Amino acid sequence: MLGVGDDCALFSVPVGHQLATSTDLLLEGRHFFSNVDPPALGHKALAVNLSDLAAMGATPLACVLGLGLPSVDESWLSGFAQGFHELADQSGCPLIGGDTTRSQRDITISVTVYGAVLPQRALRRDAAVVGDDIWVSGTLGRADVAYRLLANEWPALPGLLDATRQALERPQPRLGLGAALGGIARAALDISDGIVQDLGHILKASGVGAVLDYAALPVDPALFALPAERIASAVLSGGDVYELCFTVGPAQRDAVLQAARVAGTPVTRVGHVIAGNGLQVLDVNGQAMQWLRGCFDHFSEG
Amino acid sequence: MLGVGDDCALFSVPVGHQLATSTDLLLEGRHFFSNVDPPALGHKALAVNLSDLAAMGATPLACVLGLGLPSVDESWLSGFAQGFHELADQSGCPLIGGDTTRSQRDITISVTVYGAVLPQRALRRDAAVVGDDIWVSGTLGRADVAYRLLANEWPALPGLLDATRQALERPQPRLGLGAALGGIARAALDISDGIVQDLGHILKASGVGAVLDYAALPVDPALFALPAERIASAVLSGGDVYELCFTVGPAQRDAVLQAARVAGTPVTRVGHVIAGNGLQVLDVNGQAMQWLRGCFDHFSEG
Repeated sequence: MLGVGDDCALFSVPVGHQLATSTDLLLEGRHFFSNVDPPALGHKALAVNLSDLAAMGATPLACVLGLGLPSVDESWLSGFAQGFHELADQSGCPLIGGDTTRSQRDITISVTVYGAVLPQRALRRDAAVVGDDIWVSGTLGRADVAYRLLANEWPALPGLLDATRQALERPQPRLGLGAALGGIARAALDISDGIVQDLGHILKASGVGAVLDYAALPVDPALFALPAERIASAVLSGGDVYELCFTVGPAQRDAVLQAARVAGTPVTRVGHVIAGNGLQVLDVNGQAMQWLRGCFDHFSEG
Repeated sequence: MLGVGDDCALFSVPVGHQLATSTDLLLEGRHFFSNVDPPALGHKALAVNLSDLAAMGATPLACVLGLGLPSVDESWLSGFAQGFHELADQSGCPLIGGDTTRSQRDITISVTVYGAVLPQRALRRDAAVVGDDIWVSGTLGRADVAYRLLANEWPALPGLLDATRQALERPQPRLGLGAALGGIARAALDISDGIVQDLGHILKASGVGAVLDYAALPVDPALFALPAERIASAVLSGGDVYELCFTVGPAQRDAVLQAARVAGTPVTRVGHVIAGNGLQVLDVNGQAMQWLRGCFDHFSEG
């Protein structure tokens, strides 16, 4: 394997596997606050890409980084590199190439990740089937709450910020779970724009509808003291989550729980796929919830 | 192959081949003028990456694009896409995924390309050997002259701009030549920062020195009317060239010329590799030239 320094990086894809790849652009003011902790930013720049590999059931092989900085700040750069490399090491995803340049004004980050997946184990968006259970990993709501606190949309609540901030700034890509679900789950994706909007992508690509059981959703305990509407909006529409949402035939429930145990990642069954199209969210009484206030797009106002 | 729309794009690498990959960040004001023709920018964003594949002797498989735009301008976007797709089609390099987002202020482009190369045919930077000939493809100097005219560093010379502008805005990656040189050339790279600086990378990586014969360099005919010092600086230090510079054992001269004929790309022998380190440029009298004025970095002042 030839890494940083030549015209291209070279590496081999394991025999029989396909290459899975994803690229993301992270822009200052749009995807992160200018004053974010540099190690957290390095971590997150890689994490959001690794989460795409996890959602395909792919195993990381390598990554490349493009970095545009308005000035050279050794301390910033060393912090960023530390956060990036820690996650790269932990995920078996070495940095094999890149491009650094001076930007005019804003910090600009592009990351491309490479992974390997057996074609028959790839978790696509268009494979959900009527009758499938819908599952979600981890808990929901923390990143959205942290964002609103840091953006000063809500009054300062230091205790709540402490309890939620890591989810926004240090998301953990669900690589182990994604790989373990290969051959078990049908459709999958990672939740970047909120479960309602992202599940909608699966439904549209698969030509099916779904029912979500609100009471079954794994609300993060850090949110319990908040008003009910804020919990609902954070859990249903909050983005930047990087948990996996996936559909699985009901005969495979034990297999899902076993995969979750192997990966050490909690999973929760939250609904099911139906014929038709669109998504219904049912409240505890089985009534359609009137919660929909549009989907939140973090940082959309820069 | 699964393309745009899922978490990752999926594709296969031909059996026995390695994946060659390269990523570049292009930032407004730093790598291109704000008023550049959108189709030319789309072309160039892909071309500079394909040039890295060419310099590895790799054949393109696919590419992904990250695009950050301060506002949605349909006409700009459609022009950019046209230039990008024309070169992608022509190069057998389909766009299989990407990420579009709103930037705060500047146009931001990241492109990652994927290619395939047989390991024993990869053209690395660290493989030059004492006694190798040094070759360069195409001609030198046009892009540098066009840049200086467009940046208003020189008085307006519309005829000269017409004769040089395509080299700066529509560079043609030397994919055919790069692939044909696999198994023939030893070390190679593409000239992005000027032949002196880039050849220096080969010398350093290979632990050798070199002599360049200035009179042998393929000065582009468009430059003939310029003063000698301007020609020398454009040819030796001018960047944004995207021609290949490569070293080959002297027994392979006919093979190089045959590869050049197959690829339809002119090549010129311009020097040779010697023991030691560093680069000497000899003038027509065999004297070391005192031309060195540092290496130019286009757009470095934004």
